[in-house]
This record gives sequence, C-alpha cells and structure tokens, in this order.
Amino acid sequence: MSHPAVSLLADLIRRPSVTPIEDGVLDVVEAFLTPLGFECTRLPFEGDGSYPVDNLFAIRRGNGPHLLFAGHTDVVPPGDVAAWTHDPFSAEIVDGVMWGRGATDMKSGVAAFCGAVANLAANGGLDRGTISLAITNDEEADAVNGTKKIMEWADDRGEKFDFAIVGEPSSFETFGDSIKIGRRGSVSGKLTVVGKQGHAAYPQRANNPMPVIAALTQALYEPLDNGTEHFQPTNLEVTAIDTGNAASNVIPERASLRFNIRFNDTWTGETLLAEIHRRIAAVDARGCAIEFEQIGPVSRCFISQPEGHVAHLSDVMEQANGKRPIMSTIGGTSDARFIAQYCPVVECGLIGATMHQVDERVPVADVERLSDFYATYVASFFDRGTRD
Amino acid sequence: MSHPAVSLLADLIRRPSVTPIEDGVLDVVEAFLTPLGFECTRLPFEGDGSYPVDNLFAIRRGNGPHLLFAGHTDVVPPGDVAAWTHDPFSAEIVDGVMWGRGATDMKSGVAAFCGAVANLAANGGLDRGTISLAITNDEEADAVNGTKKIMEWADDRGEKFDFAIVGEPSSFETFGDSIKIGRRGSVSGKLTVVGKQGHAAYPQRANNPMPVIAALTQALYEPLDNGTEHFQPTNLEVTAIDTGNAASNVIPERASLRFNIRFNDTWTGETLLAEIHRRIAAVDARGCAIEFEQIGPVSRCFISQPEGHVAHLSDVMEQANGKRPIMSTIGGTSDARFIAQYCPVVECGLIGATMHQVDERVPVADVERLSDFYATYVASFFDRGTRD
Repeated sequence: MSHPAVSLLADLIRRPSVTPIEDGVLDVVEAFLTPLGFECTRLPFEGDGSYPVDNLFAIRRGNGPHLLFAGHTDVVPPGDVAAWTHDPFSAEIVDGVMWGRGATDMKSGVAAFCGAVANLAANGGLDRGTISLAITNDEEADAVNGTKKIMEWADDRGEKFDFAIVGEPSSFETFGDSIKIGRRGSVSGKLTVVGKQGHAAYPQRANNPMPVIAALTQALYEPLDNGTEHFQPTNLEVTAIDTGNAASNVIPERASLRFNIRFNDTWTGETLLAEIHRRIAAVDARGCAIEFEQIGPVSRCFISQPEGHVAHLSDVMEQANGKRPIMSTIGGTSDARFIAQYCPVVECGLIGATMHQVDERVPVADVERLSDFYATYVASFFDRGTRD
Repeated sequence: MSHPAVSLLADLIRRPSVTPIEDGVLDVVEAFLTPLGFECTRLPFEGDGSYPVDNLFAIRRGNGPHLLFAGHTDVVPPGDVAAWTHDPFSAEIVDGVMWGRGATDMKSGVAAFCGAVANLAANGGLDRGTISLAITNDEEADAVNGTKKIMEWADDRGEKFDFAIVGEPSSFETFGDSIKIGRRGSVSGKLTVVGKQGHAAYPQRANNPMPVIAALTQALYEPLDNGTEHFQPTNLEVTAIDTGNAASNVIPERASLRFNIRFNDTWTGETLLAEIHRRIAAVDARGCAIEFEQIGPVSRCFISQPEGHVAHLSDVMEQANGKRPIMSTIGGTSDARFIAQYCPVVECGLIGATMHQVDERVPVADVERLSDFYATYVASFFDRGTRD
C-alpha cells in the first residue's frame, strides 16, 4: 500500500496554488485531517496593506504536551512551463522521483506531517498529547495575512504550544544533517542624496551627490559585529545605486542607494536602524540632503536555544540517522520568525536543492522517510511529556 | 541708417537653423560677404560617424597679416516656444532689445564681425591684410563635420593664419571684461564592474560589485593637480552610477559608473587616461572584473599664451573700455580647440547671460558696440603688421 504522505503530496501538487492563490489546496489538507479527528478552522485574513489570504488551523486535542506543525501550501510560480521536463502541476513519478512545483518547498513537508499523524492515528498513537497544524497559503509573497495572523488568532483563543516544527527544507546534503534553530533578521532601506544639478564644466555652481553616495556606501560596509554563538556576522549589502543621468556633461541632482541587512541577535530592528542613522549622520554630506526611507517591514531575528525540546529533536534525529544534526541559522527569513515569540521553534525538513527552480522534484523515498521521522518524533515528544 | 550688424543679425535669427539644420542661414552670410569682395566656398562635410553639415569659408586677400574669424550659425532648440515672450525666430526689437534664439549664442558674433568688415570696406580699410571667416552650422551638437574639418581643409589649401578670434560670448558682466585665451579639455568614460549575482541572504555565494564601485568613485575623486598658471585644477565628476536592480533581496551582478573630466594643460588626453587606468588598477577589485570604456573623443586642452597678438587684442580692448580684460580659461569646450593647433586663438564676444535659455535676447546697442570694437581691432591688427 502506498504511503499516505506520497498520495497526499501528489494531490497537493496537482492544485496549482501559486502564491497567494489557494485554488482548493487547503480543501485537500482539510479533507485529509478531518477524518483523523482534527477540528479544522479556515482563517481568511485580509488588510494591513496586503491581499486576502486563506489559511487553515487544525487541532486534535489530547492529554499531554502540545506540538505545533507549521507550513505553507503556496508555491512560487513555475516560470517557463515549457522548460520543465514534466508538467509542474502533474506530480508525475518517474524512476522513484516525483516532479512538480512545491515538491520540496514545501508541499512535501505538509504531506509528510499529515501522513505521519495518519499513521499514528491508525495505531492510536495520537491521543497522548495535542497536535496543531498552522497552514498558510501565503509564505512566498507578502506573508502579511498568513502565519503571523494565525498565531495571533490562536494566542487570542488561548492556545499554548510547547514546541513548534516548521516543515521547510532544512537539510544540506543528506536528510537530517541540519536543522534550523534560528534565522537572521532582515531590513531594507533606501538613501537618496540630493545635491544640485549643473554643467560638468562649472562644478562650483553644482553640488554632485555622487561622492556622498560613495562615502555612504563605504560607511555602511563597515563591519557591524563579529557574529554570535549561533549566528554568522551581520551582513549588509548595497543592492543598488542609481542616478538615471545619461548626459556625461551634466552633474546629476540626485542619486539613490538601496541596501539590505541580514542581522543576528546582536541587534533588534530598532538598534540596528539607530546604528545606520548614526553612520549616515557621520558621513560628510558636502551640503547635500540625505533622505532615508525604510523599505518594507523589519523581519526580526530569532533563536531557539539548543536545549529542551530543541535538543530532544536532535536526539531523535541522531537516533534515526546515526548523526547529530548541525544547528544552523543561515539563509533567508522564514515564517518561523512569527512563531518564535510564542514557543521554541525549529525548521526540520528535506533537502531544498531544487526549490524555486525549474524541474523542482523530490525522491518519493525522501518523503516517506521524512514522514516516518515525523511520526517517530511525535511519539517521542509525547513520551517526553511537558518537561520544558 | 541702421548698423549693418543689426539688420544682418535679424536676418540670421529669422532662419531657424536649429543644429545642425542650415535652413539658408549660411546663404544669408554668403550674400552679405560676397559684395564686399570675399571669395566664398561652401564646405559640406560628412562621415566620421556623424551627420552631414554645411559650412562656409570666406576669404578676402590683402597685403598684410591674416586674421581668421570663426563662429557658428547653428542654434540650440528653442524648447517650449509658448514659453517665449516673443517668437524665438522673429527677431523682434522691443525697447532696444532684439529677441530670438541665437541672439547671443552666437549669431550676434557672426553679424557683428560681418558688420565690422562691411564698415571697414566702405572706407577702404580692408585692403591692408587678409580676412577669413570660418563659419560652421554644427558647433552645438557633434562638431565632427564643422570647424575641425574647415581648418583641415584650409590647412591643406596652404592658408596660414596669424591670429584667430572666435566670436563666442566671453564677457562676464560688462562687454569686454573678459576674453578666453584657452579652454580645458574634456574626456568622459564609463566603468562597468561585473561581479556575481546572488541572494542577499547568501552573500558568500555572490560577489557584490557595489563596494568596488564605491572604491572606484573615491579613487577617481583624488585630486589630479593643483591648477596651472592659466587654469583651474583639473576636475573630475562622477556623473552617474547605475545598477538597475529593484529587488532588495538580490545582490546585483553588475553596476556601471560614468565620469567626466575637465582637464588643464598639466595633461594630454593620453597622460590623463593613463593616470585613470593606474587608479583603476590600484583599486581592490575583490574578484570582480572592471571594464573601461571611453565615451566619445577627447576634447584637447589649449592655451594661447597672453603675449603677441593676444596681448595686443587686450590692449585694444583696454583702450576701448578703459579696463583690461581678464584672461579666462573657464567654461566648457568650444570650437576654438580646433583652431589652436594652427594659430593663437582667443574667444572675444558679448555677455552670454541668456544663451541656451528661453527668451534669449541681446541689447541692440551691444551688437553695435561689439561690431565697432571688431572694426577697431581689425584696423589695429593691420596696423601692427606681421610682427608675431
């Protein structure tokens, strides 16, 4: 008999839920979980400057600790469909590999966890604690009306989670060689330097913003910290400088500079922006005006200390794999940042090699292995009880 | 009776010879000079990557020194004609002021010199030397098929000039307070820094060209010299930096930097570009490729030493005005740079306050004064003979 995670993954891939279009994909999850005793609540959120998003919260209450699984069913666009070896929404299996958009990021994670609870339910293994799933259909785009609001809604309802797993791809080269216990924060900004336009032959009548742009760039690139116990050093990249002046005999009036910072737990968004403002103020503006604009919201940095439930998850992984996973914090932001303020959270999933690429695909055996690991872990989590 | 320079200026302004369209304006000059005994040759030049241009060379031979007058009849576009107080091609005179495109830059200079030779011819004052006029209809745009080629043509023909006056506006606040004895050179270039694109969260997999762009900017802005006897210091301006990357989470692959240098007689184009290459090579490229491209040709720097004919012109101006003119070298390039390699050359003309602007205009009395000064000067030039 086929693994329930694999047939569910095929059903999910066949729904082209390109972010943020739900297209029935959450119905598939809901139809899978309801017969297992989950109470399912659809949570359509909207507003706050973003588009409406459909979400699903499912809970099966039991007597014991409370584990939250979080994930998303939306996928990035397939790009040039003609470039795919197999249709990105067909879930074809060829030589033991399932092809399709979301095969790794992260319909496989959702399917694996659902398959795990199905197998546990079949042997009565689900009753020794509470299992919740927070599934959004908007992680790949704005993420304004997704996981963040599910968590607020659950908190308002009084749900208390002991631990959370996000099913994002977290492995490097082999399954379970790495889990993510934190993520750096991210903040972007734009500086505009306004001088005075003029003819290049009469620089004394103009005020060129370009030397100020260069000085700002160098000031921003000064190191921000040396890294912390679990994090790489904070890193700033100037991602663009633009002038839009094609005339080589004209000194431009203005130029803009964009930057992005990935920051560790040395900083909060507030202290980091204060440091950036301090650096800007220390640059010689040479009579130009320097305008600052924050681009988008701050993504906060979070860390789940490698102890308690986090250490226990590593123990279970070590038993399953014979090798303890690396506790990683690298990479971009993820929805885990919205969960970290409520309970310890870890990202634990497959290898993400083909995510966001043409020909995204996953070995069927990997999906089964992840699902079986989740089942083993949930059983062990219940055994451990509410010790943290 | 109206001054011949004033009626000729009106005729010239009424030809809308927006660069490089000749539109009969050189016919007007030719028709004016021919009855005065000038041998007129139309010199249509084309090729060398630019459009065809009409030009006029006029010569009246006599026994004595040879004076060249150079100027242009093309004008910059009028811009928004509705914004003009009077039609830019009507040459209306209101309260002693003539309005129109080219009224200062520099149909007035051409008209004033032609008026001067007309008045001299009327009293037999033109026979004691040779007078040539090199009039192009492309000074404001490419200047590839204009004065440069007229001079080459005349040189091929064996013409030897003792001194040249360019009738460009050269006065600051009052007529004759300044003449231009040289101009800085100009050269423009573009640097492209090519790194490796990547995600801002994984800078170790990318190579950001932006810090290199900033370092190049600072290296280019190091002073080039301290100025020379007759020139301001060489000045470099970065006129644009462009990346064209809107995604704040993407490290761009490449960025470009454009610069323009106005250089004095410390440098030739060759030595200056060698210095720029030396500076580029000294910047830490951080693994990026740095590509250099020269934009357009080098405009050479020239200086006519303030002695001989140059000093004599100043003497005549001092006698006329009671004040010796400043020997200036400021401002952009002019066609005088094409003449400097054949004979000493000076720019001597009106105040350029309204040039290139809406409502360009000139007091009629200023045109008469310039024309009468040219006549006085030509007579004195002939008196002085071929002493230099």
